[in-house]
Amino acid sequence: MKIAALAGGVGGAKLAQGLAEILNPADLSIIVNTGDDFEHFGLYISPDVDTVCYTLAGIANPDTGWGIAADTFQTFTALTRFGAPNWFKLGDIDLATHLERTRLLDQGESLTNITHHMCRKLGVTHSVLPMTDERVSTWVDTEEFGILPFQEYFVKYRFEPKCKSFLFKGIDEAEPGEQVLETLIGSDAVVICPSNPFVSIDPILALKGVRETIKRKFVLCVSPIIGGNAIKGPLAKMFLEFGYQPSPQAVIDHYQGLVDCILIDPDDNGEISSEARSSIMIHETEILIPDIAGRVRLAKEILDLIRIQL
Amino acid sequence: MKIAALAGGVGGAKLAQGLAEILNPADLSIIVNTGDDFEHFGLYISPDVDTVCYTLAGIANPDTGWGIAADTFQTFTALTRFGAPNWFKLGDIDLATHLERTRLLDQGESLTNITHHMCRKLGVTHSVLPMTDERVSTWVDTEEFGILPFQEYFVKYRFEPKCKSFLFKGIDEAEPGEQVLETLIGSDAVVICPSNPFVSIDPILALKGVRETIKRKFVLCVSPIIGGNAIKGPLAKMFLEFGYQPSPQAVIDHYQGLVDCILIDPDDNGEISSEARSSIMIHETEILIPDIAGRVRLAKEILDLIRIQL
Repeated sequence: MKIAALAGGVGGAKLAQGLAEILNPADLSIIVNTGDDFEHFGLYISPDVDTVCYTLAGIANPDTGWGIAADTFQTFTALTRFGAPNWFKLGDIDLATHLERTRLLDQGESLTNITHHMCRKLGVTHSVLPMTDERVSTWVDTEEFGILPFQEYFVKYRFEPKCKSFLFKGIDEAEPGEQVLETLIGSDAVVICPSNPFVSIDPILALKGVRETIKRKFVLCVSPIIGGNAIKGPLAKMFLEFGYQPSPQAVIDHYQGLVDCILIDPDDNGEISSEARSSIMIHETEILIPDIAGRVRLAKEILDLIRIQL
Repeated sequence: MKIAALAGGVGGAKLAQGLAEILNPADLSIIVNTGDDFEHFGLYISPDVDTVCYTLAGIANPDTGWGIAADTFQTFTALTRFGAPNWFKLGDIDLATHLERTRLLDQGESLTNITHHMCRKLGVTHSVLPMTDERVSTWVDTEEFGILPFQEYFVKYRFEPKCKSFLFKGIDEAEPGEQVLETLIGSDAVVICPSNPFVSIDPILALKGVRETIKRKFVLCVSPIIGGNAIKGPLAKMFLEFGYQPSPQAVIDHYQGLVDCILIDPDDNGEISSEARSSIMIHETEILIPDIAGRVRLAKEILDLIRIQL
């Protein structure tokens, strides 16, 4: 059974780790959002790809949701002494990823090949596929500051500004990454990880051919909303800003008929409309997965749900 | 008395430090070679400027001749785990300099302004002036590998290849740095530090107007050759490869009538031609200056020699 998972950063990485514990490398590919990528100090930084790779490698910092566990901040501390921008923290070991990626990109290597190479060096054997090898960048139109690059909205302004809309610059021209469509076509089911639909999953779905390909598959989604809140990040706030009550129902509505099955927290059951109940499968379970045991358990449930559909 | 010093890396930095201990910031400017500058991992690295700034700041690593004392190598170690090029070592604190310089260059700041800003942050109050704000790069034509970028010749190949010639790409179009000509014009004397004439001083002299301006000044040079050897680096080897015996006489000949006074080691006295003796001042003294006391002592002797000429 071949699975393609779509993921953003932290939430997506957690489920991807659970799936990777069970599935062989040949049977799992994780397609990762690159809309958050940006350049900082001349370096190309790919936050979601890094979070997924570090999590699969078992070196992610569990406390911060970014960076590498027990990383040091020698360079960053020296940067702050120069008065350099300090809103995006850069660990010393993490920096090596950005430096080597930038070097290889400058040599003309694709982000797909670079990610493959770095995964191997980190001991990650499953495929982590950047959604595209071209430059797509997410911008957030905010009430307070106008249009901001995503990382500024997200990190510098701590997602406090009110969102009016999102813009994925370059998305119409960008081709999906080398193996993305092929992987989706060859997959038996697609898992949409508990990532932010607006800024993590939508960019992937907006790439040429992706939504159409996924529509023909069995698509299972894990709700990124529990009890009206996002586990991490601005999703609940975004739903409210767009006039929706944050709930699994809002997630179902957002994905507009793409999803065949959604996993939700049992307490959120009352939020689901009868229309949704009659058209897709609602599976209630513990979807909060802070530890590896929970991630594996949820991954197993997902694979069981898929298995009975195929 | 206003002094302009011309310097490359380590040797130049040592004498510059001695001069800076005695002269007020208003009375000393150090014009530094940027031909060695290069891009590595997407970062703009200016090795001679860094060596001079770190030495003046009292944070240079005295053992290596590059980098910062007691720096750590967390990022570099992680880079080597990725199989990245490891021929140019990057300390963690040193990296902050390259990152912030690259960021500011990307913002359109000049290398002169950036160096000024970073000097202030490092506590350096004397003017360190990059020779140009434009891109000039030193290339070495070698017998074994053809034309190499300077850092590859120097660091990667440890200056083992045989030099045939040097090329300063961009030198004809480049303007001297913002304050370079003005500083030279306003100086009472020019000190050519004990740096490599071929690859550290010649690029500075080759910039528009520099040689002509210096010719009108009292120019004092400290021999970078002692007892037939360079204190550090490939200079003696270069002289031999070009068919000259490495000696202060070869240095005098190299500078072709530009120098009015040369400081040499007493043991090298026999190497000086009678022609040179009759045309320039030969001052014998201890020119090996490993420690700060020696640097200050030599700087005082230099200032005394200049004072009696003015």
